[in-house]
Amino acid sequence: MVELLVASNNPKKLAELEAVLAEAGIAGIELVAPADVAAYPEPVENGLTFRDNALIKARAGAAATGLPCVADDSGLAVAAMGGMPGILSARWAGRHGDDVANNALLLAQMEDIELRDAAFVSCCALATPGGEEFSVEGRWEGRLLRRPRGAGGFGYDPIFEPLGEGGRSAAELTAEEKNAVSHRGRALRELAVHIAELKNR
Amino acid sequence: MVELLVASNNPKKLAELEAVLAEAGIAGIELVAPADVAAYPEPVENGLTFRDNALIKARAGAAATGLPCVADDSGLAVAAMGGMPGILSARWAGRHGDDVANNALLLAQMEDIELRDAAFVSCCALATPGGEEFSVEGRWEGRLLRRPRGAGGFGYDPIFEPLGEGGRSAAELTAEEKNAVSHRGRALRELAVHIAELKNR
Repeated sequence: MVELLVASNNPKKLAELEAVLAEAGIAGIELVAPADVAAYPEPVENGLTFRDNALIKARAGAAATGLPCVADDSGLAVAAMGGMPGILSARWAGRHGDDVANNALLLAQMEDIELRDAAFVSCCALATPGGEEFSVEGRWEGRLLRRPRGAGGFGYDPIFEPLGEGGRSAAELTAEEKNAVSHRGRALRELAVHIAELKNR
Repeated sequence: MVELLVASNNPKKLAELEAVLAEAGIAGIELVAPADVAAYPEPVENGLTFRDNALIKARAGAAATGLPCVADDSGLAVAAMGGMPGILSARWAGRHGDDVANNALLLAQMEDIELRDAAFVSCCALATPGGEEFSVEGRWEGRLLRRPRGAGGFGYDPIFEPLGEGGRSAAELTAEEKNAVSHRGRALRELAVHIAELKNR
Protein backbone atom coordinates (compact mmCIF):
# COMPACT_ATOMS: atom_id res chain seq x y z
CA MET A 1 0.00 0.00 0.00
CA VAL A 2 1.37 3.43 -1.00
CA GLU A 3 0.32 6.35 1.18
CA LEU A 4 -0.59 9.56 -0.65
CA LEU A 5 -1.21 12.81 1.20
CA VAL A 6 -4.11 14.90 -0.12
CA ALA A 7 -3.24 18.49 0.81
CA SER A 8 -6.73 19.78 1.47
CA ASN A 9 -8.89 20.20 4.53
CA ASN A 10 -11.96 19.69 2.38
CA PRO A 11 -13.11 16.07 2.82
CA LYS A 12 -15.07 16.34 -0.45
CA LYS A 13 -11.82 16.63 -2.35
CA LEU A 14 -10.42 13.47 -0.78
CA ALA A 15 -13.64 11.62 -1.61
CA GLU A 16 -13.52 12.94 -5.18
CA LEU A 17 -9.98 11.64 -5.70
CA GLU A 18 -10.97 8.32 -4.12
CA ALA A 19 -13.79 7.98 -6.63
CA VAL A 20 -11.53 8.89 -9.55
CA LEU A 21 -8.95 6.28 -8.55
CA ALA A 22 -11.63 3.59 -8.09
CA GLU A 23 -13.15 4.42 -11.47
CA ALA A 24 -9.75 4.17 -13.12
CA GLY A 25 -9.18 0.79 -11.46
CA ILE A 26 -6.18 2.07 -9.55
CA ALA A 27 -5.82 0.11 -6.30
CA GLY A 28 -3.11 0.09 -3.66
CA ILE A 29 -3.13 3.84 -2.96
CA GLU A 30 -4.17 4.90 0.53
CA LEU A 31 -5.25 8.50 0.73
CA VAL A 32 -4.14 10.39 3.82
CA ALA A 33 -5.78 13.62 5.02
CA PRO A 34 -3.78 16.47 6.59
CA ALA A 35 -5.61 15.80 9.87
CA ASP A 36 -4.02 12.32 9.95
CA VAL A 37 -0.48 13.69 9.71
CA ALA A 38 1.35 15.15 12.70
CA ALA A 39 3.11 18.15 11.18
CA TYR A 40 1.35 19.45 8.12
CA PRO A 41 2.12 23.12 7.47
CA GLU A 42 -0.29 25.34 5.57
CA PRO A 43 2.00 27.14 3.11
CA VAL A 44 1.34 30.68 1.93
CA GLU A 45 -0.31 30.44 -1.48
CA ASN A 46 1.45 33.39 -3.03
CA GLY A 47 1.76 32.08 -6.59
CA LEU A 48 0.41 33.98 -9.57
CA THR A 49 -1.19 30.98 -11.31
CA PHE A 50 -3.23 27.94 -10.34
CA ARG A 51 -0.18 25.81 -11.23
CA ASP A 52 2.14 27.86 -8.96
CA ASN A 53 -0.20 27.41 -6.01
CA ALA A 54 -0.93 23.72 -6.60
CA LEU A 55 2.80 23.02 -6.72
CA ILE A 56 3.47 25.16 -3.63
CA LYS A 57 0.97 23.06 -1.68
CA ALA A 58 2.07 19.69 -3.07
CA ARG A 59 5.75 20.45 -2.41
CA ALA A 60 5.08 21.66 1.12
CA GLY A 61 3.07 18.53 1.91
CA ALA A 62 5.73 16.19 0.54
CA ALA A 63 8.55 18.02 2.29
CA ALA A 64 6.78 18.06 5.65
CA THR A 65 5.61 14.45 5.70
CA GLY A 66 7.93 12.46 3.47
CA LEU A 67 4.86 11.23 1.59
CA PRO A 68 4.00 11.89 -2.02
CA CYS A 69 1.41 14.64 -2.01
CA VAL A 70 -1.43 15.72 -4.25
CA ALA A 71 -2.78 19.27 -4.18
CA ASP A 72 -5.06 21.32 -6.33
CA ASP A 73 -5.68 24.97 -6.86
CA SER A 74 -8.92 25.87 -8.55
CA GLY A 75 -11.07 28.84 -9.23
CA LEU A 76 -13.46 30.65 -11.48
CA ALA A 77 -12.01 32.63 -14.38
CA VAL A 78 -14.40 35.29 -15.68
CA ALA A 79 -13.59 36.48 -19.21
CA ALA A 80 -14.75 40.07 -18.71
CA MET A 81 -12.60 40.28 -15.56
CA GLY A 82 -9.29 39.26 -17.09
CA GLY A 83 -9.55 35.78 -15.60
CA MET A 84 -10.36 36.89 -12.07
CA PRO A 85 -11.40 35.85 -9.38
CA GLY A 86 -8.91 33.19 -10.56
CA ILE A 87 -6.30 32.35 -7.95
CA LEU A 88 -8.10 34.68 -5.52
CA SER A 89 -11.44 32.84 -5.85
CA ALA A 90 -11.54 31.49 -2.30
CA ARG A 91 -10.91 34.90 -0.72
CA TRP A 92 -12.59 37.16 -3.26
CA ALA A 93 -14.68 39.09 -0.72
CA GLY A 94 -11.63 39.40 1.55
CA ARG A 95 -12.13 36.47 3.96
CA HIS A 96 -11.09 32.93 3.05
CA GLY A 97 -13.89 30.53 2.22
CA ASP A 98 -16.93 32.79 2.60
CA ASP A 99 -18.85 31.37 -0.37
CA VAL A 100 -21.97 33.49 0.12
CA ALA A 101 -20.01 36.74 0.28
CA ASN A 102 -17.82 35.74 -2.68
CA ASN A 103 -20.84 34.97 -4.84
CA ALA A 104 -22.65 38.17 -3.85
CA LEU A 105 -19.61 40.34 -4.55
CA LEU A 106 -18.94 38.79 -7.96
CA LEU A 107 -22.57 39.24 -9.03
CA ALA A 108 -22.52 42.88 -7.89
CA GLN A 109 -19.28 43.58 -9.75
CA MET A 110 -20.63 41.97 -12.93
CA GLU A 111 -24.10 43.51 -12.72
CA ASP A 112 -23.77 45.77 -15.77
CA ILE A 113 -21.65 43.39 -17.86
CA GLU A 114 -23.37 41.44 -20.62
CA LEU A 115 -20.43 39.17 -21.48
CA ARG A 116 -20.96 36.29 -19.01
CA ASP A 117 -18.39 33.79 -20.30
CA ALA A 118 -16.57 32.05 -17.48
CA ALA A 119 -14.70 28.82 -16.81
CA PHE A 120 -13.84 26.82 -13.76
CA VAL A 121 -10.14 25.99 -13.88
CA SER A 122 -8.27 23.49 -11.75
CA CYS A 123 -4.62 22.63 -11.62
CA CYS A 124 -3.82 19.37 -9.85
CA ALA A 125 -0.22 18.70 -8.87
CA LEU A 126 1.65 15.71 -7.51
CA ALA A 127 5.01 16.12 -5.76
CA THR A 128 7.14 13.30 -4.38
CA PRO A 129 9.64 13.58 -1.52
CA GLY A 130 12.29 12.72 -4.12
CA GLY A 131 11.55 15.94 -5.97
CA GLU A 132 9.44 14.70 -8.89
CA GLU A 133 6.59 17.00 -9.90
CA PHE A 134 3.61 16.57 -12.18
CA SER A 135 0.85 19.06 -12.85
CA VAL A 136 -2.19 19.01 -15.10
CA GLU A 137 -4.92 21.54 -15.75
CA GLY A 138 -8.62 21.00 -16.36
CA ARG A 139 -11.21 23.52 -17.58
CA TRP A 140 -15.01 23.54 -17.41
CA GLU A 141 -16.56 26.14 -19.68
CA GLY A 142 -19.80 27.95 -18.98
CA ARG A 143 -21.28 31.28 -18.08
CA LEU A 144 -21.97 33.36 -15.04
CA LEU A 145 -25.60 33.46 -13.91
CA ARG A 146 -27.28 36.56 -12.47
CA ARG A 147 -28.66 34.87 -9.34
CA PRO A 148 -27.58 31.77 -7.36
CA ARG A 149 -29.44 28.53 -8.12
CA GLY A 150 -29.17 25.07 -6.53
CA ALA A 151 -27.99 23.69 -3.22
CA GLY A 152 -25.27 21.22 -4.24
CA GLY A 153 -21.55 21.70 -4.71
CA PHE A 154 -19.68 24.57 -3.12
CA GLY A 155 -17.84 27.79 -4.00
CA TYR A 156 -19.19 29.47 -7.12
CA ASP A 157 -21.27 26.44 -8.22
CA PRO A 158 -24.63 28.20 -7.62
CA ILE A 159 -23.79 31.05 -10.02
CA PHE A 160 -22.05 29.01 -12.73
CA GLU A 161 -24.00 27.44 -15.60
CA PRO A 162 -21.82 24.88 -17.37
CA LEU A 163 -22.25 24.36 -21.10
CA GLY A 164 -24.19 21.27 -22.13
CA GLU A 165 -26.01 20.60 -18.86
CA GLY A 166 -29.48 21.73 -19.90
CA GLY A 167 -29.26 25.16 -18.34
CA ARG A 168 -28.70 23.84 -14.81
CA SER A 169 -26.23 25.53 -12.50
CA ALA A 170 -23.25 23.52 -11.27
CA ALA A 171 -25.01 23.41 -7.90
CA GLU A 172 -27.99 21.67 -9.54
CA LEU A 173 -25.91 18.70 -10.75
CA THR A 174 -25.41 15.58 -8.65
CA ALA A 175 -21.92 14.99 -7.30
CA GLU A 176 -21.49 12.18 -9.85
CA GLU A 177 -22.60 14.36 -12.75
CA LYS A 178 -20.30 17.13 -11.63
CA ASN A 179 -17.25 14.93 -11.12
CA ALA A 180 -17.72 13.41 -14.57
CA VAL A 181 -17.33 16.75 -16.35
CA SER A 182 -15.87 19.27 -13.93
CA HIS A 183 -12.50 21.00 -14.14
CA ARG A 184 -11.13 19.13 -11.11
CA GLY A 185 -12.54 15.79 -12.26
CA ARG A 186 -10.81 16.19 -15.60
CA ALA A 187 -7.52 17.20 -14.05
CA LEU A 188 -7.65 14.41 -11.45
CA ARG A 189 -8.30 11.75 -14.08
CA GLU A 190 -5.27 12.95 -15.98
CA LEU A 191 -3.17 13.00 -12.85
CA ALA A 192 -4.30 9.46 -11.93
CA VAL A 193 -1.86 8.00 -14.44
CA HIS A 194 1.03 9.53 -12.50
CA ILE A 195 -0.49 8.50 -9.17
CA ALA A 196 -0.69 4.88 -10.38
CA GLU A 197 3.03 4.95 -11.10
CA LEU A 198 3.84 5.68 -7.47
CA LYS A 199 3.46 1.95 -6.84
CA ASN A 200 6.35 1.20 -9.17
CA ARG A 201 8.94 3.14 -7.16
CA MET B 1 -17.45 80.53 -27.18
CA VAL B 2 -17.85 76.78 -27.75
CA GLU B 3 -19.74 74.87 -25.08
CA LEU B 4 -18.29 71.48 -24.13
CA LEU B 5 -20.15 69.07 -21.85
CA VAL B 6 -17.98 67.24 -19.31
CA ALA B 7 -19.83 63.98 -18.62
CA SER B 8 -18.94 63.57 -14.97
CA ASN B 9 -20.61 64.47 -11.72
CA ASN B 10 -17.19 64.85 -10.11
CA PRO B 11 -16.39 68.59 -10.00
CA LYS B 12 -12.68 67.73 -9.62
CA LYS B 13 -12.67 66.33 -13.13
CA LEU B 14 -14.13 69.50 -14.59
CA ALA B 15 -11.55 71.57 -12.70
CA GLU B 16 -8.77 69.28 -13.94
CA LEU B 17 -9.80 69.73 -17.57
CA GLU B 18 -10.12 73.48 -17.05
CA ALA B 19 -6.53 73.56 -15.76
CA VAL B 20 -5.27 71.47 -18.67
CA LEU B 21 -6.92 73.75 -21.24
CA ALA B 22 -5.56 76.88 -19.52
CA GLU B 23 -2.07 75.39 -19.40
CA ALA B 24 -2.23 74.54 -23.09
CA GLY B 25 -3.34 78.10 -23.86
CA ILE B 26 -6.66 76.91 -25.27
CA ALA B 27 -9.25 79.64 -24.77
CA GLY B 28 -12.82 79.98 -25.99
CA ILE B 29 -14.08 76.67 -24.60
CA GLU B 30 -16.76 76.84 -21.94
CA LEU B 31 -17.03 73.69 -19.85
CA VAL B 32 -20.56 72.64 -18.96
CA ALA B 33 -21.37 70.23 -16.10
CA PRO B 34 -24.20 67.67 -16.34
CA ALA B 35 -26.01 69.55 -13.58
CA ASP B 36 -26.24 72.57 -15.94
CA VAL B 37 -27.98 70.59 -18.67
CA ALA B 38 -31.67 69.76 -18.55
CA ALA B 39 -31.75 66.19 -19.83
CA TYR B 40 -28.53 64.39 -19.21
CA PRO B 41 -28.96 60.62 -19.09
CA GLU B 42 -26.55 58.39 -17.14
CA PRO B 43 -25.85 55.59 -19.61
CA VAL B 44 -25.13 52.04 -18.48
CA GLU B 45 -21.36 51.58 -18.58
CA ASN B 46 -21.39 48.04 -19.88
CA GLY B 47 -18.27 48.18 -22.03
CA LEU B 48 -15.39 45.76 -21.55
CA THR B 49 -12.60 48.36 -21.80
CA PHE B 50 -11.93 51.87 -20.53
CA ARG B 51 -12.25 53.06 -24.13
CA ASP B 52 -15.66 51.38 -24.57
CA ASN B 53 -16.99 53.09 -21.46
CA ALA B 54 -15.49 56.51 -22.16
CA LEU B 55 -17.07 56.46 -25.63
CA ILE B 56 -20.42 55.23 -24.27
CA LYS B 57 -20.53 58.21 -21.92
CA ALA B 58 -19.26 60.78 -24.44
CA ARG B 59 -21.73 59.61 -27.11
CA ALA B 60 -24.65 59.62 -24.69
CA GLY B 61 -23.81 63.14 -23.56
CA ALA B 62 -23.50 64.48 -27.11
CA ALA B 63 -26.70 62.76 -28.25
CA ALA B 64 -28.74 64.04 -25.32
CA THR B 65 -27.58 67.65 -25.35
CA GLY B 66 -26.44 68.43 -28.88
CA LEU B 67 -23.12 69.60 -27.39
CA PRO B 68 -19.72 68.07 -27.96
CA CYS B 69 -18.99 65.95 -24.92
CA VAL B 70 -15.86 64.79 -23.10
CA ALA B 71 -15.91 61.71 -20.87
CA ASP B 72 -13.31 59.57 -19.22
CA ASP B 73 -13.19 56.09 -17.82
CA SER B 74 -10.35 55.34 -15.50
CA GLY B 75 -9.24 52.73 -13.05
CA LEU B 76 -6.47 50.80 -11.44
CA ALA B 77 -5.03 47.83 -13.32
CA VAL B 78 -3.23 45.39 -11.03
CA ALA B 79 -0.81 43.09 -12.87
CA ALA B 80 -1.31 40.07 -10.60
CA MET B 81 -5.08 40.41 -11.06
CA GLY B 82 -5.20 40.33 -14.83
CA GLY B 83 -5.74 44.09 -15.01
CA MET B 84 -8.57 44.22 -12.50
CA PRO B 85 -10.18 46.16 -10.78
CA GLY B 86 -9.91 47.88 -14.19
CA ILE B 87 -13.26 48.96 -15.59
CA LEU B 88 -14.89 47.82 -12.32
CA SER B 89 -12.67 50.05 -10.15
CA ALA B 90 -15.42 52.37 -8.96
CA ARG B 91 -17.69 49.52 -7.83
CA TRP B 92 -15.10 46.95 -6.81
CA ALA B 93 -16.59 46.25 -3.37
CA GLY B 94 -20.08 46.09 -4.90
CA ARG B 95 -21.37 49.62 -4.33
CA HIS B 96 -20.49 52.49 -6.65
CA GLY B 97 -17.99 55.01 -5.31
CA ASP B 98 -17.26 53.53 -1.87
CA ASP B 99 -13.52 54.33 -1.90
CA VAL B 100 -12.82 53.04 1.61
CA ALA B 101 -14.48 49.68 0.94
CA ASN B 102 -12.82 49.38 -2.48
CA ASN B 103 -9.35 50.00 -1.02
CA ALA B 104 -9.89 47.60 1.88
CA LEU B 105 -11.15 44.82 -0.39
CA LEU B 106 -8.28 45.16 -2.85
CA LEU B 107 -5.68 45.07 -0.05
CA ALA B 108 -7.33 41.97 1.45
CA GLN B 109 -7.43 40.19 -1.91
CA MET B 110 -3.77 41.01 -2.56
CA GLU B 111 -2.54 40.25 0.96
CA ASP B 112 -0.47 37.16 0.05
CA ILE B 113 0.70 38.40 -3.35
CA GLU B 114 4.25 39.75 -3.61
CA LEU B 115 3.96 41.10 -7.16
CA ARG B 116 2.61 44.62 -6.50
CA ASP B 117 2.92 46.15 -9.99
CA ALA B 118 -0.07 48.29 -10.88
CA ALA B 119 -0.97 51.18 -13.15
CA PHE B 120 -3.66 53.80 -13.20
CA VAL B 121 -5.19 53.88 -16.66
CA SER B 122 -7.48 56.52 -18.12
CA CYS B 123 -9.22 56.72 -21.43
CA CYS B 124 -10.56 60.16 -22.34
CA ALA B 125 -13.01 60.43 -25.20
CA LEU B 126 -14.55 63.29 -27.14
CA ALA B 127 -17.74 62.83 -29.15
CA THR B 128 -19.46 65.47 -31.24
CA PRO B 129 -23.16 65.62 -32.11
CA GLY B 130 -22.04 65.19 -35.73
CA GLY B 131 -20.64 61.76 -34.93
CA GLU B 132 -16.93 62.45 -34.70
CA GLU B 133 -15.10 60.50 -32.01
CA PHE B 134 -11.62 60.77 -30.51
CA SER B 135 -10.17 58.73 -27.70
CA VAL B 136 -6.76 58.66 -26.06
CA GLU B 137 -5.32 56.59 -23.25
CA GLY B 138 -2.92 57.57 -20.48
CA ARG B 139 -1.08 55.31 -18.03
CA TRP B 140 0.59 56.00 -14.68
CA GLU B 141 2.86 53.19 -13.54
CA GLY B 142 3.50 52.27 -9.94
CA ARG B 143 2.85 49.66 -7.32
CA LEU B 144 0.21 48.72 -4.83
CA LEU B 145 0.98 49.60 -1.21
CA ARG B 146 0.01 47.40 1.75
CA ARG B 147 -1.72 50.15 3.75
CA PRO B 148 -3.39 53.45 2.77
CA ARG B 149 -1.28 56.61 3.09
CA GLY B 150 -2.16 60.26 2.53
CA ALA B 151 -5.33 62.33 2.50
CA GLY B 152 -5.34 63.87 -0.98
CA GLY B 153 -6.80 62.62 -4.23
CA PHE B 154 -9.60 60.05 -4.34
CA GLY B 155 -10.28 56.46 -5.36
CA TYR B 156 -7.25 54.20 -5.02
CA ASP B 157 -4.77 57.10 -4.58
CA PRO B 158 -3.96 56.20 -0.93
CA ILE B 159 -2.81 52.68 -1.82
CA PHE B 160 -0.96 53.50 -5.07
CA GLU B 161 2.71 54.48 -5.06
CA PRO B 162 3.62 55.98 -8.44
CA LEU B 163 7.13 55.46 -9.80
CA GLY B 164 9.49 58.40 -9.46
CA GLU B 165 7.66 60.32 -6.73
CA GLY B 166 10.03 59.57 -3.87
CA GLY B 167 7.98 56.76 -2.39
CA ARG B 168 4.93 58.92 -1.76
CA SER B 169 1.45 57.56 -2.41
CA ALA B 170 -0.68 59.31 -5.02
CA ALA B 171 -2.72 60.68 -2.11
CA GLU B 172 0.43 62.38 -0.78
CA LEU B 173 0.98 64.45 -3.94
CA THR B 174 -0.51 67.91 -4.38
CA ALA B 175 -3.25 68.23 -7.00
CA GLU B 176 -0.78 70.05 -9.26
CA GLU B 177 1.87 67.35 -8.90
CA LYS B 178 -0.69 64.68 -9.59
CA ASN B 179 -2.21 66.35 -12.64
CA ALA B 180 1.25 66.84 -14.13
CA VAL B 181 2.01 63.12 -14.25
CA SER B 182 -1.22 61.20 -13.75
CA HIS B 183 -2.97 58.91 -16.22
CA ARG B 184 -5.89 61.30 -16.66
CA GLY B 185 -3.64 64.36 -16.90
CA ARG B 186 -1.69 62.71 -19.70
CA ALA B 187 -4.79 61.63 -21.56
CA LEU B 188 -6.46 65.03 -21.18
CA ARG B 189 -3.43 66.88 -22.50
CA GLU B 190 -3.45 64.65 -25.57
CA LEU B 191 -7.17 65.15 -26.04
CA ALA B 192 -6.80 68.94 -25.69
CA VAL B 193 -5.56 69.14 -29.29
CA HIS B 194 -8.89 67.76 -30.50
CA ILE B 195 -10.83 69.99 -28.11
CA ALA B 196 -9.06 73.07 -29.51
CA GLU B 197 -10.24 72.13 -32.99
CA LEU B 198 -13.88 72.33 -31.92
CA LYS B 199 -13.58 76.10 -32.43
CA ASN B 200 -12.86 75.61 -36.13
CA ARG B 201 -16.17 73.91 -36.92
